[in-house]
Amino acid sequence: MNSYFDYNATTPISPAARDAWREAAEHFWHNPSSLYREAGAAKRRLEDAREALADRLGTEPERVVFTSGATEGNNAVMAHAARRQAAAPVVISAIEHPSVREAAFREFGKECVTELSVTPRGAVDLDLLAAQLENGDAPALVSVMGANNETGVIQPWREMAVLCRKHDVPYHCDASQWIGKYPMAGLGESCDFLTGCAHKFGGPKGVGFLLIPEDAITDFHSLVGGPQESGHRAGTEDLPGILGMIAALETHQDAALAEARVGRLADRTAFESALVERVPGTCIIVSEVDRLWNTVMFVVPEHPNLKWLTRLANAGFAVSTGSACSAGRGNPSRVMEAMGLDYEEMGRVIRVSGGWETTRADWMALAAAIEGVSTDLSSGSRQSGVDLGA
Amino acid sequence: MNSYFDYNATTPISPAARDAWREAAEHFWHNPSSLYREAGAAKRRLEDAREALADRLGTEPERVVFTSGATEGNNAVMAHAARRQAAAPVVISAIEHPSVREAAFREFGKECVTELSVTPRGAVDLDLLAAQLENGDAPALVSVMGANNETGVIQPWREMAVLCRKHDVPYHCDASQWIGKYPMAGLGESCDFLTGCAHKFGGPKGVGFLLIPEDAITDFHSLVGGPQESGHRAGTEDLPGILGMIAALETHQDAALAEARVGRLADRTAFESALVERVPGTCIIVSEVDRLWNTVMFVVPEHPNLKWLTRLANAGFAVSTGSACSAGRGNPSRVMEAMGLDYEEMGRVIRVSGGWETTRADWMALAAAIEGVSTDLSSGSRQSGVDLGA
Repeated sequence: MNSYFDYNATTPISPAARDAWREAAEHFWHNPSSLYREAGAAKRRLEDAREALADRLGTEPERVVFTSGATEGNNAVMAHAARRQAAAPVVISAIEHPSVREAAFREFGKECVTELSVTPRGAVDLDLLAAQLENGDAPALVSVMGANNETGVIQPWREMAVLCRKHDVPYHCDASQWIGKYPMAGLGESCDFLTGCAHKFGGPKGVGFLLIPEDAITDFHSLVGGPQESGHRAGTEDLPGILGMIAALETHQDAALAEARVGRLADRTAFESALVERVPGTCIIVSEVDRLWNTVMFVVPEHPNLKWLTRLANAGFAVSTGSACSAGRGNPSRVMEAMGLDYEEMGRVIRVSGGWETTRADWMALAAAIEGVSTDLSSGSRQSGVDLGA
Repeated sequence: MNSYFDYNATTPISPAARDAWREAAEHFWHNPSSLYREAGAAKRRLEDAREALADRLGTEPERVVFTSGATEGNNAVMAHAARRQAAAPVVISAIEHPSVREAAFREFGKECVTELSVTPRGAVDLDLLAAQLENGDAPALVSVMGANNETGVIQPWREMAVLCRKHDVPYHCDASQWIGKYPMAGLGESCDFLTGCAHKFGGPKGVGFLLIPEDAITDFHSLVGGPQESGHRAGTEDLPGILGMIAALETHQDAALAEARVGRLADRTAFESALVERVPGTCIIVSEVDRLWNTVMFVVPEHPNLKWLTRLANAGFAVSTGSACSAGRGNPSRVMEAMGLDYEEMGRVIRVSGGWETTRADWMALAAAIEGVSTDLSSGSRQSGVDLGA
């Protein structure tokens, strides 16, 4: 029984990733920059990992930079774009992860950041981007994510990539929620910059990757110092983390991902049907839209979401009130704001996100648990009018 | 038999660190920013780790920022100093790690970076720093490492810290080679900023820590995005890495470090005596100076160091021609340059660095192996006058 429904926040490490980490920590711990045989063996595994990842993305290993995660990648892309064209505007979506938005603000200044609004269906408006590219000053970068971490809405990244290329503007895709859930082929060709993060797809924490375009190979740098990663990212390589990440990816081959998601989508749909039927008044956000097969965001009919979350936690279920990044802050979600939810509704939002391990039985158990909380909360408010539970 | 002599490049992961990593990856993998019970358990372990580290450094946990390693820490300190005082000069030593020097160049511009030269004994000249602080413009930061990674020479960080405080200038100590070899007590009080790196003391790769001063708590940031690390460093925390790092540190308690190093120093001295006796013409760099108990840098009497390294590797010994960071580049070492070695001598430099596991027998076996290579090389050159070995 898997009652963890916060896979978009982080995933448990997969057995393959854990074993790869352990093997590397045990046998390939030498510094790949050193010159003796064992260091050479570590270096070879590092470059094999780079090649394996490039193959999956359909591109050249020279474009792959291993990082400490998506936040580093997103920060570094913005810094690079600003070094290239400091005075230019930068275009992001209104639903980007804070590691993209805050980095854009830091590097370009708030006044130079254009935030593309999303349609009521939660996707970036392609026409707005087209208008921006045709009428505005040429931006230094367009950065729009592959799929949103809160709503799960899949963004039109392929079309945006084409549009950007047409206008000769670099396109960055934060694919943190895409990788490991959907096929990767073609990503490398479409996107100039692309960010991925291992712990979102069963890899170890503290490791990720970044794809850079050919024309940035000579001057891109995230951290500076030693010559690691061809000068793109200084610091002794975390080979155990990198090999763990690649092992996690290998358990998610494109063909299997493409095939499996159909069944997964059916499981999620069954959950959604059960939810709206068993908890009347519950509203699924952008229910008709192409969303990640694992993600459902919904507004409960009454009581603050924290009350639901606490009771679900007591019943053993882990869900979220939004992204883990903003959950602790009590700030209104910018994603929900961008989608037009009012403040009161935002306080009733719950996000659930499953994983490959999640079965239909798990989803149905979650629906039953939510129904139970609903009953509990209704009787509680009828009885006392006061509830101190959250 | 331990024939690994490149501990300054990286160390094998300690069993305690590996076990702590595994336990966390298995049981505390939830996102510490989430709101259910398991996330809370992860969060508590994260904060316990912060407190344990602060205790060792004799300071408050609020000053501790977990990072991806020393390079990130060193880069972030420079970026912070430049944000505070962009127009000010910055003072570093001529023997800093590239992750300090390159970051200073990137953030302040080369023309604003003053590099303090070192004495022929390989230590930063305190008088030069005093003169700089008394006569020059007040620098935004002084950054001098705790001990040099190539020569092992211990720098007068305590005195520099006092001098900087007297002049109200923030002092940063890259303590990557200090932590885990020498007691940590007092470091937190003396240094405003301090960088540490887990894989240099038996911890996992890809994780480190940074100490920031009280007055930077409100505005310091390395990566931006989510609110992790009190806003000092965005990105999902690598809790397995962090707990692995703390476990590695716990195997190196101050009292034991202080006591054990006496014996270790005797082992190193025995090696040095054997080396100069058995390989005549070998010269130990700064032999009379206070150096890390594990490090010996020496100039061999003839043949390029790569020939020695290759032959030692064939005999199973891992040594270095300098820092791992510059070893792969074939560049002259800036440290050796700063110490006045000429180009020809630099090509004959070998660095060996042991670990806590290294025994006197290991050191003596290394001396014997070097003697063997020396004999081999001499007879080779006598026989043919040509050597294709390297």
